[in-house]
Amino acid sequence: MTASAPELRLVMMATAVLATIVSSRVAAAQDIVLRGMGSLHVGGRIAEVSGKPVRDIVRVPGGPSSKLDPNGQYQVEQMYAQYFLPKMRKGKVPLLMWHGGGLTGVTYETTPDGREGWLNMFVRKGWDVYVSDAVERGRSGFASPDVWPGEPIFLTYADPFERFRIGAGEGSWSPDPANQKLMPGVQFPVEAYANYMKQTVPRWLTTDDAVIAGYVALADKVCPCVLLLHSQGGSFGLKVAELRPDRIKAIVAVESASGGALAKAAALKDVPILMMFGDNVDLHPRWVAYRKLDLEYAAAVRAAGGKVDVINLPEIGIKGNSHMLMMDKNNGAIADVIERWLVDQGLTSEDGR
Amino acid sequence: MTASAPELRLVMMATAVLATIVSSRVAAAQDIVLRGMGSLHVGGRIAEVSGKPVRDIVRVPGGPSSKLDPNGQYQVEQMYAQYFLPKMRKGKVPLLMWHGGGLTGVTYETTPDGREGWLNMFVRKGWDVYVSDAVERGRSGFASPDVWPGEPIFLTYADPFERFRIGAGEGSWSPDPANQKLMPGVQFPVEAYANYMKQTVPRWLTTDDAVIAGYVALADKVCPCVLLLHSQGGSFGLKVAELRPDRIKAIVAVESASGGALAKAAALKDVPILMMFGDNVDLHPRWVAYRKLDLEYAAAVRAAGGKVDVINLPEIGIKGNSHMLMMDKNNGAIADVIERWLVDQGLTSEDGR
Repeated sequence: MTASAPELRLVMMATAVLATIVSSRVAAAQDIVLRGMGSLHVGGRIAEVSGKPVRDIVRVPGGPSSKLDPNGQYQVEQMYAQYFLPKMRKGKVPLLMWHGGGLTGVTYETTPDGREGWLNMFVRKGWDVYVSDAVERGRSGFASPDVWPGEPIFLTYADPFERFRIGAGEGSWSPDPANQKLMPGVQFPVEAYANYMKQTVPRWLTTDDAVIAGYVALADKVCPCVLLLHSQGGSFGLKVAELRPDRIKAIVAVESASGGALAKAAALKDVPILMMFGDNVDLHPRWVAYRKLDLEYAAAVRAAGGKVDVINLPEIGIKGNSHMLMMDKNNGAIADVIERWLVDQGLTSEDGR
Repeated sequence: MTASAPELRLVMMATAVLATIVSSRVAAAQDIVLRGMGSLHVGGRIAEVSGKPVRDIVRVPGGPSSKLDPNGQYQVEQMYAQYFLPKMRKGKVPLLMWHGGGLTGVTYETTPDGREGWLNMFVRKGWDVYVSDAVERGRSGFASPDVWPGEPIFLTYADPFERFRIGAGEGSWSPDPANQKLMPGVQFPVEAYANYMKQTVPRWLTTDDAVIAGYVALADKVCPCVLLLHSQGGSFGLKVAELRPDRIKAIVAVESASGGALAKAAALKDVPILMMFGDNVDLHPRWVAYRKLDLEYAAAVRAAGGKVDVINLPEIGIKGNSHMLMMDKNNGAIADVIERWLVDQGLTSEDGR
């Protein structure tokens, strides 16, 4: 059938009208279209505090002291996770993002200098993303000294600058930018370091078992899944994967602070693992040591028949990355590398099935 | 122009083709379409700790003790906020949701029994929503005892049940549901009380000034805006509004724990205020006292020429609401009441302008 000129005109008119009608419901390319979003808490236990003395506290500054009886039942050691479910799903399973020490899930949100972080990027790539705060951090809350032994530790202002390969090691921090000694070609948004420090939170040294139990509870709730782990979250995540290998379809360990338990590495023989490291690792003994631990674990997994891919980013031309890769100015390029690896593992499809 | 039958057929075909092409980009009614989402931290200061003794801590359970030098500079008293910006904007200014005592912004997310909370509901209604964690709570982090005097307090498991008009006052909690004494017709999802308790976090008694400074920093950053306040967040929010009346276009104070400062109430003479109370207030002396404080403040604002609307929900046929109205089973009906009031204040339009 060949359309006459008047017919074509009519089609064009109808098309224009229809386009106008639907445009208000059509998402632009830059929009984020979700089929759902929400949050949940998992795990935890009720702790019984008894036999503690009643103590005096001041409830209002300058006011009289009054009695506080700490004895009773308390909810402790639960873990918070927030989820974003894109309408155009590509990932076959959810992607769980676990943060590093002294931080929360905010690690994966907007970068300190206001760009999009990996949460938004992977939602846009079509992954159901769960961002959690480890037990004892952020929205997971924390327990009283009557429940947890020890005290939390706090990072000094200079510590991450000198330790996370933003500055060139010890003594590199200065409040005066002109006097800061930076790592070569560093991609961290140094000008927004103050905002990064606002993301830091205290952490305990005695709660590893509770943290792992929280992550296991999350895995039991929302997996099968892919784990995207960072730093201390890598140490936790690999141990959680050893406990739940059937529920973990792949692991991306970004500068993990250590491997899992060498004796249990065989548990991961069927779980593809990507270990990723940034730049300037060789210039900082701490990170040389951590990478060595990671690679020893990789060797143990491989010896058991497993598969571990290792990407040193500078070797593929991605340079200048600090320990906080997901906030660095080239965070998008790194997310693309991770996405390609996940695609190669067969973990995506056109409709996420 | 009258279309012939073949012409009409052609138009219908073209329409069908076009509809197919765009359908994959058209959001369904239940989808959440955002033009952006992200997070930020505001405010805070660098605290200098000096002259404190070096102390021994154990860094790894069972390990040796090592020295911790607490002296140095620390980032403290910043505040976290997360934002969701709907594509179909109706609210002319952002809506800021501030939570109550012992809680975080999670208050406004998914309810303990897994339904949508007010965050999702107001984003769907077309409001740019900012959900924050007060200074010292959740993702805002907290400062060390070397910076803040006093200690945080922790809620016992039974406390909110008996105090927030879920149960019928003191002694109403029991781990056995059959032995719980509930408030008449209570709408709180009692079966999910355990999940609600997982949302609770410790709070300090000595940090009110820092909390208010954090909220002021947020108002300076993202307002003009509407404040949606709950409980202790009401006491904070009204004081913040007294400090920044030009930036606050309206206030919805849901069971505020108190009014602002009576002597400063006149500052709010040009800011429309809605005070809202749930059900069974008269059955709990604590809430009778809080409502009395709120209404005294309302009278002071009115005496200065201001406008305060008061809605006691049972009086408009919305019954059974606990103190945690935004989680109650009829939370959607209450959100609708708030939305209608905001519309009446002229704070919405078809395109949010």
